[in-house]
Amino acid sequence: MTVLILTCPQDVTTDMVVDKLHERGVPLVRLDPADLPGEAALSAEYVRGDFRGYLSADGRLLSMSALRSIWVRRPGRPAAHAPEPSPWLTAESGLSLYGMLYSTSARWMNHPCVAEQARCKPWQLGVAHRSGFAVPPTLVTTFPRVAEEFALQYGEIVVKSASGPPPGDPPVSLPTTRIGPDTDFAGVAAAPTMLQEYIAKRADIRLTCVGRRLFAARKVAASDQVDGRYGTAGQSWEPAEVPERIAKAVHEYMSLAALAYGAFDFAEDADGVWWFLECNQGGQFGFIELETGQPIAAAVAAWLGSPAL
Amino acid sequence: MTVLILTCPQDVTTDMVVDKLHERGVPLVRLDPADLPGEAALSAEYVRGDFRGYLSADGRLLSMSALRSIWVRRPGRPAAHAPEPSPWLTAESGLSLYGMLYSTSARWMNHPCVAEQARCKPWQLGVAHRSGFAVPPTLVTTFPRVAEEFALQYGEIVVKSASGPPPGDPPVSLPTTRIGPDTDFAGVAAAPTMLQEYIAKRADIRLTCVGRRLFAARKVAASDQVDGRYGTAGQSWEPAEVPERIAKAVHEYMSLAALAYGAFDFAEDADGVWWFLECNQGGQFGFIELETGQPIAAAVAAWLGSPAL
Repeated sequence: MTVLILTCPQDVTTDMVVDKLHERGVPLVRLDPADLPGEAALSAEYVRGDFRGYLSADGRLLSMSALRSIWVRRPGRPAAHAPEPSPWLTAESGLSLYGMLYSTSARWMNHPCVAEQARCKPWQLGVAHRSGFAVPPTLVTTFPRVAEEFALQYGEIVVKSASGPPPGDPPVSLPTTRIGPDTDFAGVAAAPTMLQEYIAKRADIRLTCVGRRLFAARKVAASDQVDGRYGTAGQSWEPAEVPERIAKAVHEYMSLAALAYGAFDFAEDADGVWWFLECNQGGQFGFIELETGQPIAAAVAAWLGSPAL
Repeated sequence: MTVLILTCPQDVTTDMVVDKLHERGVPLVRLDPADLPGEAALSAEYVRGDFRGYLSADGRLLSMSALRSIWVRRPGRPAAHAPEPSPWLTAESGLSLYGMLYSTSARWMNHPCVAEQARCKPWQLGVAHRSGFAVPPTLVTTFPRVAEEFALQYGEIVVKSASGPPPGDPPVSLPTTRIGPDTDFAGVAAAPTMLQEYIAKRADIRLTCVGRRLFAARKVAASDQVDGRYGTAGQSWEPAEVPERIAKAVHEYMSLAALAYGAFDFAEDADGVWWFLECNQGGQFGFIELETGQPIAAAVAAWLGSPAL
């Protein structure tokens, strides 16, 4: 039984997981949908209820009946490397590939249809609250007056991207920025803007959930630092214990969102409360593993390579 | 309780449903996501588990707590009408809008995450078989040799689009074309190609499913006609009885695919068997209603306007 990894060649995090799969002796095929058609090829036959599908990629021929699991990491746009790419060829190639993969009984980390919803930060907040997390008051608006009132009510607030990292390759991120109630909010009308109560934090928490396994890392915050991903000020990520209440909420969130993988960001305040900021269903973990030594790549490989959940 | 319709202004099928909603006295808001931000505006606040959201569109202010149902018809690309459109603004606007809508308890026809999977024709074939439909042998391939073998095995076959109507506005369709085993299949390597056993049909069937209601229409096929959507040869759509076995399979398909609306295409052969060709989760129904007089728009309005399922 084989693992299929959908990602682009530049993705070094995948290399870490590939090493672990090799150690476990689990066969794998690495495919960039951008290479279909061309380097990669497919064939799927549906005859009287029998479905036989094959993928040719990575120098291997993979039968869909031998597919154990599919890891959606950083897949390229289907047919992007074709000699004459077009939106039509991308649609034909993408829906053929994913249509064939959806027809299998393979487990997904994460299923693309689930991921689409999980990417929406406003939706995450409601799910996080229902899961039992503390969630900072948050506003998404195009009304300058509503933004002003929110800022007046909460005093210190932060502005952040509403949609998470923008689509595209290479992925880019914008830092979260602290602003005061005297800000000019006129620009809010030009784009939905996400404002959140500022949590005075003593640490950032990154909790990576792989199936049922949790890896929490903690980084002491510099006094003037807002976004833990930028301006490290000499601090580094250290392994952290996961409070039982948080573990329960994480499992509840993963179940409600139907995710197999999620990277949770929290702000730890002076009282030790972990405030939910977001859950990135495709979040990076390489930098955490490198700093903390937590075996996250091995956990991903174990999930992908295990016969069943 | 209000109905939200996501569609572009050019969508005349929506006008038919809007009339029926007006007749029933059901309040509605029509929104083109392309108008956000600008003509349309939104605001969503998440505070300690309370979620309050508002949409301003169509000259109305709509509270998310008063949202009964959402009909996804032909929505434009978010922020497409902005003074300075960009992929980033589209992402921010789209995920803000849909993130807010996903946070409501409104019923969807159809939920975008469900629709994404339902669009994949190869996936449809497996679901159709499991639902109890007769499904013609079908191949999706980039291997010319496999295409040749399929053509030799089945003799008369058709080639069709693998992904259904391509994305884009206005939507376009390609007719299904009949080919023989002597075709040159070399071009298959340049794009995944869908081949299907040719069903010698005496009629086309279009079955529209709205919630639990079924509307079947039948059009006698001209002897040389392959795609019922083109070349009508003087025949017109007539209302048809739905065999009990088909009704059962349709409900099973809708349940497996988690759809509230689906437009099924069948080919009726000389023995009266209805062969499943595809289920378009966003398929048109206006032309069927105009020819048969079947009250499909009224059924959509009833589903959207009803308090619960």
